[in-house]
Amino acid sequence: MNGAQALLRTLAAAGVDVFFANPGTSEMHLVDAIGKSDGMRAILCLFEGVVTGAADGYGRMADRPAATLLHVGCGLSNGMANLHNAKKAHTPVINVVGDHATYHQQYDAPLATDVPAHARIFSDWVKVSASADDLAASGTDAVGAALRGSGKIATLIVPANHAWEPAGTPRLLPVEKRAEEMPPPLLEEAARLLSNGKRTGLVMGGRGLRAEVLAVAGGICAATGASLLCETFPARLQRGAGRVPVARMPYFAEKGVAFLAAFEQLILVGGRVPVAFFAYPGKPSLLAPPECRIFTLATTDDDVPGAMTALSQILKVDARPVALQSKRRVPKPQGALTPDAIGRSLCRLMPKDTIVCDEGITCSQPVYAATEGGPPHDWLAVTGGAIGIGLPLALGAAVACPKRKVVALQADGSAMYTVQTLWTMAREQTDVTVVLLNNSSYAILNIELRRVGAEKPNAKTLSMLDLKQPAIDWVALSHSMGVAAVRVDSAEAFDREFEAAMASCGPRLIEAVVPQTLDRIFG
Amino acid sequence: MNGAQALLRTLAAAGVDVFFANPGTSEMHLVDAIGKSDGMRAILCLFEGVVTGAADGYGRMADRPAATLLHVGCGLSNGMANLHNAKKAHTPVINVVGDHATYHQQYDAPLATDVPAHARIFSDWVKVSASADDLAASGTDAVGAALRGSGKIATLIVPANHAWEPAGTPRLLPVEKRAEEMPPPLLEEAARLLSNGKRTGLVMGGRGLRAEVLAVAGGICAATGASLLCETFPARLQRGAGRVPVARMPYFAEKGVAFLAAFEQLILVGGRVPVAFFAYPGKPSLLAPPECRIFTLATTDDDVPGAMTALSQILKVDARPVALQSKRRVPKPQGALTPDAIGRSLCRLMPKDTIVCDEGITCSQPVYAATEGGPPHDWLAVTGGAIGIGLPLALGAAVACPKRKVVALQADGSAMYTVQTLWTMAREQTDVTVVLLNNSSYAILNIELRRVGAEKPNAKTLSMLDLKQPAIDWVALSHSMGVAAVRVDSAEAFDREFEAAMASCGPRLIEAVVPQTLDRIFG
Repeated sequence: MNGAQALLRTLAAAGVDVFFANPGTSEMHLVDAIGKSDGMRAILCLFEGVVTGAADGYGRMADRPAATLLHVGCGLSNGMANLHNAKKAHTPVINVVGDHATYHQQYDAPLATDVPAHARIFSDWVKVSASADDLAASGTDAVGAALRGSGKIATLIVPANHAWEPAGTPRLLPVEKRAEEMPPPLLEEAARLLSNGKRTGLVMGGRGLRAEVLAVAGGICAATGASLLCETFPARLQRGAGRVPVARMPYFAEKGVAFLAAFEQLILVGGRVPVAFFAYPGKPSLLAPPECRIFTLATTDDDVPGAMTALSQILKVDARPVALQSKRRVPKPQGALTPDAIGRSLCRLMPKDTIVCDEGITCSQPVYAATEGGPPHDWLAVTGGAIGIGLPLALGAAVACPKRKVVALQADGSAMYTVQTLWTMAREQTDVTVVLLNNSSYAILNIELRRVGAEKPNAKTLSMLDLKQPAIDWVALSHSMGVAAVRVDSAEAFDREFEAAMASCGPRLIEAVVPQTLDRIFG
Repeated sequence: MNGAQALLRTLAAAGVDVFFANPGTSEMHLVDAIGKSDGMRAILCLFEGVVTGAADGYGRMADRPAATLLHVGCGLSNGMANLHNAKKAHTPVINVVGDHATYHQQYDAPLATDVPAHARIFSDWVKVSASADDLAASGTDAVGAALRGSGKIATLIVPANHAWEPAGTPRLLPVEKRAEEMPPPLLEEAARLLSNGKRTGLVMGGRGLRAEVLAVAGGICAATGASLLCETFPARLQRGAGRVPVARMPYFAEKGVAFLAAFEQLILVGGRVPVAFFAYPGKPSLLAPPECRIFTLATTDDDVPGAMTALSQILKVDARPVALQSKRRVPKPQGALTPDAIGRSLCRLMPKDTIVCDEGITCSQPVYAATEGGPPHDWLAVTGGAIGIGLPLALGAAVACPKRKVVALQADGSAMYTVQTLWTMAREQTDVTVVLLNNSSYAILNIELRRVGAEKPNAKTLSMLDLKQPAIDWVALSHSMGVAAVRVDSAEAFDREFEAAMASCGPRLIEAVVPQTLDRIFG
């Protein structure tokens, strides 16, 4: 057995069963070992950003890590933006990165890179294997590191000779999920705050946005008068009819300030201190009023569900009725194809347990609003602001949940970052419906340009935010990679095509020609 | 005037006249300033790897830097692999990277990243502007840093508030190119080595591979019996009929060892110590014989052309005839479409001063061999081994040299990394003919898998190296982004289409369906 094979054994024993891969020469023994590892699924992606974004989607839905296979520092850097998103989503991910053989690293070969320096930027845990024999134990450690709290990014760097040199039979150790339990004084302080009569918000995040935790949180809110809030871009929010509603924070700083103006206390339960996404001239960075007390009950490293249950017990929350999202009946949309019309079709037609991967950018908010009260579903957002994750996220979610429908709500500019994902969707026949929102623009930047106070932009300035020249033919692009596609420009046509997509299986793309939305974004 | 406008003034004054851009919100004032900077060309690319690869192509051909406009750490990471290639090519590049406003960085907003940590990985020079007023001088410094030696990667990080805050009128300073002059003792030692009767190779690199420097080097070789060698993957090699031939080192370690076996001395003139691209079990990392003396006359930081002229004078090289590549007459290729047939069409049909951007991977060598003795042309290779640079390199080269034909010799797997480049080629109507070498495989990895000693690969292993399922329709893909395209599968059809491409102007793609080449690579 060589080091690569030993590593594969411990990864499989620890419950890892999918590799998203884009290998190079230094990973050939790992490729060979993956090929020979029974039950380990190997999914080839044609760019590393697809690999890492898919691992994020998989981890968000499976609550356990997929592995990525990446090639030296350059492969890692190509996948880094989506690992940034995964880190902000607190997704468990294991990166297995090949490097030059230890003795070869001194020679500054063309692909010589400082792989650990790359890895440290986004990883919570980094290790370079010490030997072939060390690889198996390192694999177990990587899984353990990835499963800490809600989830962490663990990166194991494998010099090529460690993969090919002989290794002993590995000890197969069980890996346990670990999340910190809440200290009672913290819980008691939270309970005291919730009982002091002040206007209070519970800022939920991480596992706090799962339906069963929201149900407990909803009970606490009903009993105490607190409001249930969540981050603008949740990693995974369970919503829809019969579930407890959560108010999502608005995107723009000034709207966030207005949204939080009345709160005297915010209790963070997996959520974070509300801050503006970007700084703008003359606008604040912190969104809560200066006198608002912010109390951290639990971070994503803690046992958020346990914290809510314990808090509910301390508060002696009885079974009083909690406001739930009521089921919404939506008539067939008609007329112009707007994001709102698209949202109404989703609300009407998507089956229970659909996973919506949202990189709709300026088109998101109307779709989000229109699907409130739709069938219960999971909503996955761009957590770290790095665009190019929507399609990979949908790919990974579909691999994790092959029996659930996945809808990728996908803006055009962002889609181009990792458009290669379509090929892997076709190859794996994942059940993803891509709703490609074609407004032929980096619309968000057209808004931001005005918001930051740039004066009278001229044609050259605007050309840097425009995707019209030439127009991208999304149907041809999708076909070129083996994904069935159709273009629609009316609400009726979209509804018809979306209905057909929901009634069938496998990947397809609906190019929805929508107008630029230049006003409201994320509430 | 704000900081962004002051920066644009100094960049323009220092001779920078192109920005390849993929901006985000934190760069909006820079976008506005670029828009309003007369004579500054703004070229939008739909992914950062396109931006940086294009800047590399531009810098290699223009010998002065283009600027890139990138968005925080995630934008930088997306462009990092091609900056690695640019660094290995010693190309002058200026990255202008926006970051959060200084006062906003403390809040860990979703896109908060350690931008300097990203930049340090591949940059020769990194600076974070100290204030709006500091931006102009920083711009001048960045240009100076980029022009050191053959060229350097200079990265200027601009917090958003420095771009929008007021700045004084900048002092416009001239920027001088700097390369170290050669100390006489080094030149004398090189002359002594060349006269000692031992078998000697001159390993040329950087500016040493320009026609006029090769002419001088050829004279030295004719006078002393030395051989003219170059790196496997030169940044820019001027070759073709009437130019001095250079022997390119083979790619595979064992072939490199055989190639260098007879040499007793290697003199590096912009070239590097020959090392294996990768380590392989049981094969050496260093390619020259252990007893071979390696003497560094000049690095890419030095004045390589000056060194060759001075050496030629010390050696009193007279005008004795130098062996030149003789013009090759090639009949119209017929029959199966092979890389060799493609090379013969190039040799036959490409006009003088064509720029060949070579990311042909396993198909490269036959095309390279067949174009020896073709019309004088520049050959640009993948210097750092990070794939996905071929199309961007061609884009940038075409922007730098709008009157020259550019041929992108492009493997399919690598093309998918930065396939978004086609859109910018269409938008800018660059005169690039993409020869898309479709073998539906990561063919190089199929070779490497066997070479590293992986035993009997099974179907799952091989699936990680295969692009057949589904087949990519390159004609549709190209059309979807506005680039005319055609598919050919015979030598005659390729020749006809290539002839048509050479006779017309503007971007087009020829999908050449070629067999997998599983034996010889780069000699």
